[in-house]
Amino acid sequence: MSQATDDSLVISSDPLHPANLIPELCRSFYNLGWVTGTGGGICIRTGDKVFIAPSGVQKERIEPSHIFVLPFPQPEPSPHTDRVFLRRPALNLKESACTPLFWNSFDLRDAGSCIHTHSQHAVMATLLWTGPVFTISHQEMIKGVRVAGTGHALSYLDTLVLPIIENTPNEEDLKDSMAEAMTKYPDAAGVLVRRHGVYVWGTDWEKAKTQTECLDYLFEIGVKMKLAGLPTVLN
Amino acid sequence: MSQATDDSLVISSDPLHPANLIPELCRSFYNLGWVTGTGGGICIRTGDKVFIAPSGVQKERIEPSHIFVLPFPQPEPSPHTDRVFLRRPALNLKESACTPLFWNSFDLRDAGSCIHTHSQHAVMATLLWTGPVFTISHQEMIKGVRVAGTGHALSYLDTLVLPIIENTPNEEDLKDSMAEAMTKYPDAAGVLVRRHGVYVWGTDWEKAKTQTECLDYLFEIGVKMKLAGLPTVLN
Amino acid sequence: MSQATDDSLVISSDPLHPANLIPELCRSFYNLGWVTGTGGGICIRTGDKVFIAPSGVQKERIEPSHIFVLPFPQPEPSPHTDRVFLRRPALNLKESACTPLFWNSFDLRDAGSCIHTHSQHAVMATLLWTGPVFTISHQEMIKGVRVAGTGHALSYLDTLVLPIIENTPNEEDLKDSMAEAMTKYPDAAGVLVRRHGVYVWGTDWEKAKTQTECLDYLFEIGVKMKLAGLPTVLN
Amino acid sequence: MSQATDDSLVISSDPLHPANLIPELCRSFYNLGWVTGTGGGICIRTGDKVFIAPSGVQKERIEPSHIFVLPFPQPEPSPHTDRVFLRRPALNLKESACTPLFWNSFDLRDAGSCIHTHSQHAVMATLLWTGPVFTISHQEMIKGVRVAGTGHALSYLDTLVLPIIENTPNEEDLKDSMAEAMTKYPDAAGVLVRRHGVYVWGTDWEKAKTQTECLDYLFEIGVKMKLAGLPTVLN
Repeated sequence: MSQATDDSLVISSDPLHPANLIPELCRSFYNLGWVTGTGGGICIRTGDKVFIAPSGVQKERIEPSHIFVLPFPQPEPSPHTDRVFLRRPALNLKESACTPLFWNSFDLRDAGSCIHTHSQHAVMATLLWTGPVFTISHQEMIKGVRVAGTGHALSYLDTLVLPIIENTPNEEDLKDSMAEAMTKYPDAAGVLVRRHGVYVWGTDWEKAKTQTECLDYLFEIGVKMKLAGLPTVLN
Repeated sequence: MSQATDDSLVISSDPLHPANLIPELCRSFYNLGWVTGTGGGICIRTGDKVFIAPSGVQKERIEPSHIFVLPFPQPEPSPHTDRVFLRRPALNLKESACTPLFWNSFDLRDAGSCIHTHSQHAVMATLLWTGPVFTISHQEMIKGVRVAGTGHALSYLDTLVLPIIENTPNEEDLKDSMAEAMTKYPDAAGVLVRRHGVYVWGTDWEKAKTQTECLDYLFEIGVKMKLAGLPTVLN
Repeated sequence: MSQATDDSLVISSDPLHPANLIPELCRSFYNLGWVTGTGGGICIRTGDKVFIAPSGVQKERIEPSHIFVLPFPQPEPSPHTDRVFLRRPALNLKESACTPLFWNSFDLRDAGSCIHTHSQHAVMATLLWTGPVFTISHQEMIKGVRVAGTGHALSYLDTLVLPIIENTPNEEDLKDSMAEAMTKYPDAAGVLVRRHGVYVWGTDWEKAKTQTECLDYLFEIGVKMKLAGLPTVLN
Repeated sequence: MSQATDDSLVISSDPLHPANLIPELCRSFYNLGWVTGTGGGICIRTGDKVFIAPSGVQKERIEPSHIFVLPFPQPEPSPHTDRVFLRRPALNLKESACTPLFWNSFDLRDAGSCIHTHSQHAVMATLLWTGPVFTISHQEMIKGVRVAGTGHALSYLDTLVLPIIENTPNEEDLKDSMAEAMTKYPDAAGVLVRRHGVYVWGTDWEKAKTQTECLDYLFEIGVKMKLAGLPTVLN
């Protein structure tokens, strides 16, 4: 494993630098209930560099100095093992267990940012939609979602369809089934993980964030509608 | 389209200047769940100037420099197309898609401010009240609502009635049906849009905001009552 | 009506001065959903002076300069009309419509502070408990409530009983029925108003606030239990 | 009772000093709804010193100067009575009534921190799981919980089991039944108290906090599942 480390990659006075943005966004995601108890997070890719938060830490208390920087693409065939780093924290930290999942969004969608939440709305949606997909139609918020997460915006007349994959004991083992779902549902803007949460990506952090907000809103209203006995898809 | 631009219109050290208020209010509306995922917002009219936020941006991160200023009234017959601006942001931004809807509140109610939310309470109300109106009676919060949004306050003994219009794929296409509903229900303090949200106005931003809070409260408690099997209108 | 006004009564660098506390507490009550849309508030009495917020304003944006100060007791037989003031804001403001209700807590319980909320938990409790009282037992939070609001703390084995009075079109007209309920239920720590909210008092602002928190918690869990079909009072 | 008092034990410019952390964490627990109305709190043990908040105060307004410091272990056979202090506040305060319960986590689990919440999710869980334990399986968040609170992390394939003890009128009287439950369920990461709340501990404050977040999440989703008629344990 590469030990290369260049601290200047995470030191910036620009509040929009990824090493400053990730801590700030994680704090706001904590307040939304998306990343409570060390789970979830966000990564940002700027061209050939990927900024990733550490694993297993309190996400609302990350500091820029905790951020990992990896080259993109990775020289190795897979970022699953023996990852190469441009910068590692001095502390005894490990990069987010979501790393191979985030990589799916770069490899398969050319994403610039990927968000993972443990939102209860997402988890409840995977419990009430027991099949392989979550679907909802005729909601204004659908217009905030983009085809494949990076394409043009959906229309109010489109039915939103997100695949739901089954959870695995090790987060890294979701990589293949997530990639499979992204291939099978090429227009889907995210992937739900049953009893776990959701992965959502975008061309940059703003779009990844606003799309996650739209999808989370749709999970929440969909769950409310289902529990109230209302149909969630109209013909 | 006029390219006139006067940046001094949005630079002020007064926190109550519309260009400072709109960003601050949008941040607080984000925390209330009213403007998540780029949807929703607020406009403020001060006499012959209208201050409007940009379209499709994260509403909790607007800066004064992002604000559009339009003259009121517009020289053109309709603000729907070929709008005239007093000030446009230097960035590649478009004015809010709600602009023609906001204009309804100026033209038909002489409003000084109009708010649009995607609140889930509003959307759930439009799903559980399946007809053309939302109604509720005998709630103290009704006293915070004004006749026609700009008149005298309702009494505790008044039944609140708000029209619900059907959503359209393009937000601007709601202009005519919203105007029609405002004409048909001249006393209504706002207009609900099915599966979308609500428009609420007032003589100034304080009243538009407090009335939106009262109406949102009434949507929320009305939905809770309906789901609990309680009648929402008493005779 | 007395026009006496002494601004020094509301100017202090002490954050615990009532004129500083009331704005701060109202902001936090707004975030709790207790005083949205201009309704609700808190008054503080320090010996012979009563500090009261204005009526009909956004409660999260009150300034110390907006605060009214009244002498206690009032020279007049009732604070209902022709009130005497030690200090009135320079602005065109009216004292809170809750003033005669707050006065009940001073006159009948020797309270030092009284809080009025429009909390949805309180309103839902008055809708699901259709009789003259709200009751709940066997909840740890009952231990945070005091007999009569100003006496010794309740025990876990006590059943909490709060009277519910019927709402009236004018808030001031609640004065007599609230006083009657306080006389009929001398041990009650607050008075619920059907379809409106709750009044809670204490010997000082800290106790009024913590008791309101305990009662609001009990309304919330009581409503959840009732909707889940669980009994709220055990024998 | 020892009157020894050394104020230097609670004065530090380090934001991670226990006397600074406890007030900050209590403020954030207040915002989570865990410590409303003076109930609940957190203690931190650093080797031979235990830092504890006062009893019966507003937990979101604690100051470092309010913190008690006790030696660990206590020279007396039990910390239940006649406690020895290294530092007591100058004010008329009493140490948290949870002290003997916190001590259980030190004595029986060698914990470095213990948290007590009155979260409504915890209380609702104790009402809907009417037997001696709360159980849930197949939730990603289970992986954030550790065996016995201080051991290795649970797997996604483990069923989470937490004992529920019955509440008593005096908080201190829970000491024996909590210790009994910890002995009977040696792997449990916390103890629920029926109609009251939960105790959760960890090797340090970060782990105690993240485990409390995970457990609270599991109570919340478990309650939602139960109310929606979904099974909470899969075979």
